[in-house]
Amino acid sequence: MALMVKKYGGTSVADLERIRVVAEQAQEDRRQGHDVVIVVSAMSGETNRLMGLALEASDNPNPRELDVLLSTGEQVTIALLSMCLAEWNCPAVSYTGAQVHIRTDSAFNKARILDIDQRRIRRDLEKGRVVVVAGFQGVDEEGNITTLGRGGSDTTAVALAAAQGAKECQIYTDVDGVYTTDPRVVPKARKLDRLTFEEMLELASLGAKVLQIRAVEFASKYNVPIRVLSSFEAGEGTLIAPEEAEMEQPLISGIAFTRDEAKITVQGVPDKPGIAYQILDAVADANIEVDMILQNISNESATDFTFTVHRNDHERALGLLETTCGELGAQSVTGDASIVKISLVGVGMRSHAGIASTMFGALAAEGINIQMISTSEIKISVVVDEKYLELAVRALHTAFGLDQDSEED
Amino acid sequence: MALMVKKYGGTSVADLERIRVVAEQAQEDRRQGHDVVIVVSAMSGETNRLMGLALEASDNPNPRELDVLLSTGEQVTIALLSMCLAEWNCPAVSYTGAQVHIRTDSAFNKARILDIDQRRIRRDLEKGRVVVVAGFQGVDEEGNITTLGRGGSDTTAVALAAAQGAKECQIYTDVDGVYTTDPRVVPKARKLDRLTFEEMLELASLGAKVLQIRAVEFASKYNVPIRVLSSFEAGEGTLIAPEEAEMEQPLISGIAFTRDEAKITVQGVPDKPGIAYQILDAVADANIEVDMILQNISNESATDFTFTVHRNDHERALGLLETTCGELGAQSVTGDASIVKISLVGVGMRSHAGIASTMFGALAAEGINIQMISTSEIKISVVVDEKYLELAVRALHTAFGLDQDSEED
Repeated sequence: MALMVKKYGGTSVADLERIRVVAEQAQEDRRQGHDVVIVVSAMSGETNRLMGLALEASDNPNPRELDVLLSTGEQVTIALLSMCLAEWNCPAVSYTGAQVHIRTDSAFNKARILDIDQRRIRRDLEKGRVVVVAGFQGVDEEGNITTLGRGGSDTTAVALAAAQGAKECQIYTDVDGVYTTDPRVVPKARKLDRLTFEEMLELASLGAKVLQIRAVEFASKYNVPIRVLSSFEAGEGTLIAPEEAEMEQPLISGIAFTRDEAKITVQGVPDKPGIAYQILDAVADANIEVDMILQNISNESATDFTFTVHRNDHERALGLLETTCGELGAQSVTGDASIVKISLVGVGMRSHAGIASTMFGALAAEGINIQMISTSEIKISVVVDEKYLELAVRALHTAFGLDQDSEED
Repeated sequence: MALMVKKYGGTSVADLERIRVVAEQAQEDRRQGHDVVIVVSAMSGETNRLMGLALEASDNPNPRELDVLLSTGEQVTIALLSMCLAEWNCPAVSYTGAQVHIRTDSAFNKARILDIDQRRIRRDLEKGRVVVVAGFQGVDEEGNITTLGRGGSDTTAVALAAAQGAKECQIYTDVDGVYTTDPRVVPKARKLDRLTFEEMLELASLGAKVLQIRAVEFASKYNVPIRVLSSFEAGEGTLIAPEEAEMEQPLISGIAFTRDEAKITVQGVPDKPGIAYQILDAVADANIEVDMILQNISNESATDFTFTVHRNDHERALGLLETTCGELGAQSVTGDASIVKISLVGVGMRSHAGIASTMFGALAAEGINIQMISTSEIKISVVVDEKYLELAVRALHTAFGLDQDSEED
C-alpha cells in the first residue's frame, strides 16, 4: 500500500478509449490497495485547437486570457476520466489547479508553482477516492488562472508527488522510457533503466523530449524520483533518481542531438575588451537565445567570434549583425544553418578522463570534421555538418558501448 | 453614464466574427461612458459537443463531473471575448463563475444561485474595465463547480444585474424581441414593446423559448427589468418589467402554443375518494410530468379522468396505466398524441370578463372543437386537435386584435 502519483500526457488521453485505459489502471491500483493521484494533460490536439481560436481572436493574445482559455483543455480531461471511473463505481473526484490551490506566481503562460495545499487531496485519499488533477495549471494569489507553459503537466505531477511525499512520480507517455539516443536514428538504441537528474536535464535540454526540463529540476530540488513509462505497453520504464554513491555509473548514459541549430561567425573583430558583449547584446535585445559561444584566439589583434542560435532565429540574427558589423569594425558576418549539435551525456564522465579523445577519435575515423566544441561537467557537445548527423551518432553510440547487442552479450 | 449588464447567447458568440461584434458593442458602450458587464454562453454547438463526450464516457455521467466538463464551454467564450477587447486596447477581464463567487447550492446540473460577491466586479468597473463573466455556472460552498442547467446564462445575467443594481438586464439573442405569437405560424404576429413578468412566465413556460423561466422568476423576485434584444440587428426589443398601475394593460399580450402534448383518458373509473391520487401516483413515480388535469362529472358512480403529458412520455404513461387500470376497476385507458395546447396570456384578463367567451366563440366560428380547458389568473388554455393549430392561433390572434395591421391602423 503506497501513494501513487501518475501523470498521463496528451496521447495517453487522446480519446475516450485511451481515457478508459487510464481509468482501468487506476482501478487496478486501487484494488491493490494503493492511494492514487492522477494528473492529466489536455487530450492531444485540444491545446492546438484552443491556441488556434486564440490566434483568431488576436495576433498576440492577452496572456491572462490565454491561460483562462488553455486551462479548459485539462479541465475537460479530468471530468471525462472521473466520469469513466464513476461509471465503474470507482469513487473519484476531479480538481482544477485552482480547486486544489496549486498556487503559482502571476507569470501568465509560464507560471511557477509556489506551493500546493494538499489537505483536500489527502482528505479525498483517506475516503478511498481516486483524485484526478488537471495538469499544467494553477492559480495566483489574486485568484487568476495561470498555466505553467507547454509540458507543464509533468511539473504539476512532480510537485504533487513532492507535496504528498510519494515514493516516486510516474510519467506515462507514448514511449516506454528514456533511450540512449533517438531509436529512429540509431536502431540499436537501448532503453535506460536508470538515469540521474543531472543526466536527464542535459538529455532533456538537448532534445530528448520525453520530460519537461522544469519538471526534472523540480524533482531534483525536492528529491522525487521520476519513472517514465509507456501507457501503451507494460514495462519498468526508466527511473530518474538521485545518483547513488555506491553504484558504478556508466561513462556515458546517452547521446542527444538537435537539428535546430544554426551558426553565425563574426570574422575579423578587433580584439578588445567588451567586444563579445557588444555582439551578443544586439542579439539578446531581439530576444534571440544563444546556445554555444566560441571565440578563437586572437590573430594580429583581430579575432573570430562564433555562436549558435535556434535555426528559426538565424536569418534575423544575421540581419541584426550585418548592421552592427560596421559599427564594430568587423570584417564580415557569415552564417551556416546546415549544422547539428551532438552531445554525450553521463555523470560517469566526471571521474574519467579520455571521454573527449574517444569521442573525437570516433568522429575522425569516420572523416567527420568538428566545427565547434563545448563541454560541461557531465556533457561534451560538438557541432558538425548536418549531413553527418546519423553517421556521427551511430559511430559514437557504438564507440561508447551503448548498442543494444553489445549490452546483451 | 449607467451600469449595463448584457448577456449574449450561443448564436451571438457562435464564432470569432460574432464575438468581435459583441466586443465592438461593448467598446461603443464604454465610449459613451457606461460601465459594462457582459455575460456569455458557450459558443453554439459547444455544449452539445461536450455533452457528446460525456455520453461517450458514461450513459449516465456523474453530475459533479458533468458540471466540471460543461463549464469549460463558457470559459472558452469569456477568454476569447476578453482577448478581442484587449486586442483593441479596451481593458477587459474575464471571470468564471467560481472566480466571482457566484455561490450556488450543490444541486449539480441544476444549481440555484444563493448569492454573488460583487466586490471584485465593482473594483474592476471602477478601474474602467469591461467585465466578462461566464454564464450558466457557479461554485458551491465546498468549491465544487456547479451549473445552473440549460439556459442558465440568462439567470446569471439577471442575478448580476440585481447584485449590481443595474437599471435593466439586456438579453441579446437571435430574435429581436418577444412576439404576440410565433411568427412562423402567424405572419401578422407583432413584436411586443412591453410585457409583465407574469405574462413572460406564462409565455415562456408555454413554449415561447426566448427566455429561461428561472431567469424571469429571478428578475421578478428582485424586480430587475429584462430587455430582450437581437444581437444581429438594432432595435428597442421587448422590455419585461413590473406591471405599471397607471397603464392600461392590453387584454391579451400573447398567444402561446405547444405541439408537445399528448392526452390520456381513463374511462369508467369508480368515483370514490383517492382515485385521482392512485392514477397520478403511478405516473409521478415514473418521473412523468403531468400538465393539465381534468375530471368530468360523475355518471352512474363512474367518472372519466383525463390528463396531458409530454408527447415523449405518452407511450410510457399509457403502458403504466394499462397495468394499473385493472387494479383501479376502470373500464379502459385511451390515449391521443395528436393534440396541441393553445393559451391566451395577459394580465388584462384579470379585470375583464368575457375573454373566455370571445375565445370559444372565435374557435367555434372556425368549427374547431375544444377537447380540454384550463384557466389561471392571467391565462386560458385549450386543447384541440393538432390539425387545427395554425387555424386556431390565427383566428385568436385576429379576434383579440393582435394582428400587426390592425395595430397600425
